This record gives sequence, C-alpha cells and structure tokens, in this order.
Amino acid sequence: MSDGLAKTPGPPYYAVIFSSRRTTVDEGYGAVADRMVELAARQSGFLGVESARGADGLGITVSYWATLEDIAAWKAQGEHRIAQSMGKQKWYSAFETRIARVERAYRGP
Amino acid sequence: MSDGLAKTPGPPYYAVIFSSRRTTVDEGYGAVADRMVELAARQSGFLGVESARGADGLGITVSYWATLEDIAAWKAQGEHRIAQSMGKQKWYSAFETRIARVERAYRGP
Repeated sequence: MSDGLAKTPGPPYYAVIFSSRRTTVDEGYGAVADRMVELAARQSGFLGVESARGADGLGITVSYWATLEDIAAWKAQGEHRIAQSMGKQKWYSAFETRIARVERAYRGP
Repeated sequence: MSDGLAKTPGPPYYAVIFSSRRTTVDEGYGAVADRMVELAARQSGFLGVESARGADGLGITVSYWATLEDIAAWKAQGEHRIAQSMGKQKWYSAFETRIARVERAYRGP
C-alpha cells in the first residue's frame, strides 16, 4: 500500500464508502482513527482501505471487504462500536455510509 | 451540497470510486478537475459527487449515478475523454476506478 491505493482482488467484492464532515472537536480523533484502520485490517474479509481528507474538512474513507457478512461483523466489533458512538457524539457534524458491491475495477495509468 | 456530502436518493444506484495519486505536474489540473465536475453534473443520471484529497497526495472522488448506462455515457463524453487522456499522461502516477452498486445507505449523526 505504498501509494495509498488498496490492492484489491478482482471483483466482485464490497466497498463501504464513509463520507464525513468533521466538527472542530479533536479529543483523541486521530489516535482512534488510526486504531480503527489497524483493527479493521485484522478483521476477517478485510481487503484494503483508502482514506483522504481535504483542507475543506470533507473526508472520504473507503474500506473493501470480501462479503456483506464481513462488513456486518466489523460494524458490530466492540471497540469499533465505541468509536462509532464517539464519532456520532463528538467528531462528525455529518456523515453518510454507503455499502456497495464493486462490479468492475481498472487501474492506471 | 453545502456540507460537501452528496444528497443521493434511496438505493439502489451506482457509485464510481476514483482513487488517485497525483504527480507533481500541475498544467491546468485544477481547472480541468473543476470543469469535469461541472460537466458531470449536467449528464443524464448524475446524482452527486464527493471529493477529497489529503496532504499526502491521495485523492478520492466518488460520483453517483442512476444507472450503469449513465456511467458509460459519461466515460465516453468527448471533453471527459480528453481529460482522462491528460490524466493518464500527466496528472496521475497511479489510479484505480471502481464501479459499484450501492445497496444500502444511512446518514448521521
């Protein structure tokens, strides 16, 4: 993942697109965000993650998974549930989570 | 789109996840990127777009579309094709495009 792009296998697989706008509250956000990437990477079915947040505060994190069951298991993971709750209460003024089935993929240049 | 999050309808719909790493070449990149958003928004079936590029140079743009045919038409659009070609030649050192069917979505907090 040296270029930050996830090295996913051939489709089909699943993507969780998490788009968010941050509040101005920090309170441990960076450490928890890093920890969630570390934890996700150990979950069954994890295929990779890509993340970017621009200077305007809009962030997009896309994680890739083998199956919908893997995504459900990650959503229910204990430490992740606590992080989700803190995200709703403190860190995000708005977010949307979309679960999508990747049907085609191509790489360049 | 005041908060930068796309106001998409209920699923199903489609997402084009474009993840990229920029070269250091500018040569009109910003103007063309803005123009592509403007053009895409006028295409049939366009539902919205979200974009973020972090300080590390990794960018993620997700555009949302009603159907796969709308995505194919946008890919084939004349001015967009020229931009794709310039992107491959000059602006991106690596990219991956994934086409995915959004099956579930939820918003918060």
